[in-house]
Amino acid sequence: MKLIRYGAPGAEKPGLIDSDGKLRDLSARVADIGGDALSPGNLAVLASTDAQTLPLVEGNPRIGPCIAGVGKFICIGLNYADHAVEAGMDVPSEPVIFMKATSAICGPDDDLIIPRGSEKTDWEVELGIVIGKTAKYVSEADALDHVAGYCVCHDVSERAFQNEHQGQWTKGKSADSFGPIGPWLVTKDEIADPQNLPLWLKVNGQTMQDGSTRTMVYGVAHLVSYLSRFMSLQPGDIISTGTPPGVGMGMKPPRYLKAGDVVELGVEGLGSQRQNCVADR
Amino acid sequence: MKLIRYGAPGAEKPGLIDSDGKLRDLSARVADIGGDALSPGNLAVLASTDAQTLPLVEGNPRIGPCIAGVGKFICIGLNYADHAVEAGMDVPSEPVIFMKATSAICGPDDDLIIPRGSEKTDWEVELGIVIGKTAKYVSEADALDHVAGYCVCHDVSERAFQNEHQGQWTKGKSADSFGPIGPWLVTKDEIADPQNLPLWLKVNGQTMQDGSTRTMVYGVAHLVSYLSRFMSLQPGDIISTGTPPGVGMGMKPPRYLKAGDVVELGVEGLGSQRQNCVADR
Repeated sequence: MKLIRYGAPGAEKPGLIDSDGKLRDLSARVADIGGDALSPGNLAVLASTDAQTLPLVEGNPRIGPCIAGVGKFICIGLNYADHAVEAGMDVPSEPVIFMKATSAICGPDDDLIIPRGSEKTDWEVELGIVIGKTAKYVSEADALDHVAGYCVCHDVSERAFQNEHQGQWTKGKSADSFGPIGPWLVTKDEIADPQNLPLWLKVNGQTMQDGSTRTMVYGVAHLVSYLSRFMSLQPGDIISTGTPPGVGMGMKPPRYLKAGDVVELGVEGLGSQRQNCVADR
Repeated sequence: MKLIRYGAPGAEKPGLIDSDGKLRDLSARVADIGGDALSPGNLAVLASTDAQTLPLVEGNPRIGPCIAGVGKFICIGLNYADHAVEAGMDVPSEPVIFMKATSAICGPDDDLIIPRGSEKTDWEVELGIVIGKTAKYVSEADALDHVAGYCVCHDVSERAFQNEHQGQWTKGKSADSFGPIGPWLVTKDEIADPQNLPLWLKVNGQTMQDGSTRTMVYGVAHLVSYLSRFMSLQPGDIISTGTPPGVGMGMKPPRYLKAGDVVELGVEGLGSQRQNCVADR
């Protein structure tokens, strides 16, 4: 299933994309896409729904973030060896964890707002894992039982805020609009192998990132298991798994986003995003 | 006002402590203590309530975390100069920000669960700021307009997870039960000067921390203003403002918590917490 949330910010409704690619309303079946609605049992009930019986949604509504009420937006740093090289960092001997503010979450095609004072707003296409069942001390073998599905995440990053203003990366990862997720939550049954997904990002039509989750240092199952040693993972939590090479910071000279730029990004099977960059006035 | 949440985990009800120190039920006046209920207007309505007309709560119910639905649990690192010294770190030239998982939040007297594999679980009494109104690019002069009040925060920290497992402190700050908040949200009108509050912590009756918010490096107004440059602060967000000297990591030899230990802590005017340490089985 491809689950989606559509409508005005803060007033999104749940929907799904049917086999013809059409948007259908799920409001009569589920209150929203998030939390307990993502449990294996509740997803199975939704999967048994005949999509043809659901109301078609007319027009082209805004697409919202694909998950409501995200409790934790956990990010993995330096999880592609080649990206670590371009960032001038060593490949970590264990996953590096940081948090993105949940207030950064927005829809996949919402404007990317460049914060006041920013000169180094950068892009990072990532595979997002969406948790469906509480995970605490889970083994790698059992980890995928706790995953509801996957989505595209854009881990927008302000490099000066992240690296030049005293410790802890969260400072450069958390501005409003720095966390577009979606367009869809794709349930895991549709993804044959999360470690073999091409992912890409373009700025103004020029390809900047063109990688594959095949070259991740720490894969999905390992990350879920590892994280669950340090905190409990809850339904609706998102883990953004790190970015492949090709970020602006790694270019010579570095290249950052400015108002007027258009960023497009996607992960195979999970859809794509498109953001217009605007200044925060 | 002293606002409180009481009852079983996940089923807490809103209440307040009246002028006689008695717990009264607020369920008929507000759905919960958190989010928009913390706006200046909504707090003013609650403040105009005659507490004597509210139902008394019988017995001694569990006290829950004083804020429901916390969106961000932001912590400030090394914000007391003497604590930076004992941690072997320099006083930062700007506030250090990290995030605690919101799933770590619990009631002030709930068990402190020592995670599996932990040998370095440590204590940190802190003053918590509770946001009441969205703050984005606010000046220091206006910052307190966005604060609903204050609470005691215990920033429980696993030092090996924090410092010995590859970058970013969130890894050692986020286990379940590592974020007791409360007992009360004390509205700011009751706190004459947030920069002059004694705060203390005892382990098994022995005083370990005995400080004052007077020696903070970056005060409340500065922190709210500073943070609002990097992310929007939302009603119900909590900022835990750093800990004074006296943590276990700074002792010679270091002293960490083990099952059976009892931790008590408090901030003047904001009440106190008491946790029994237990192993996570």
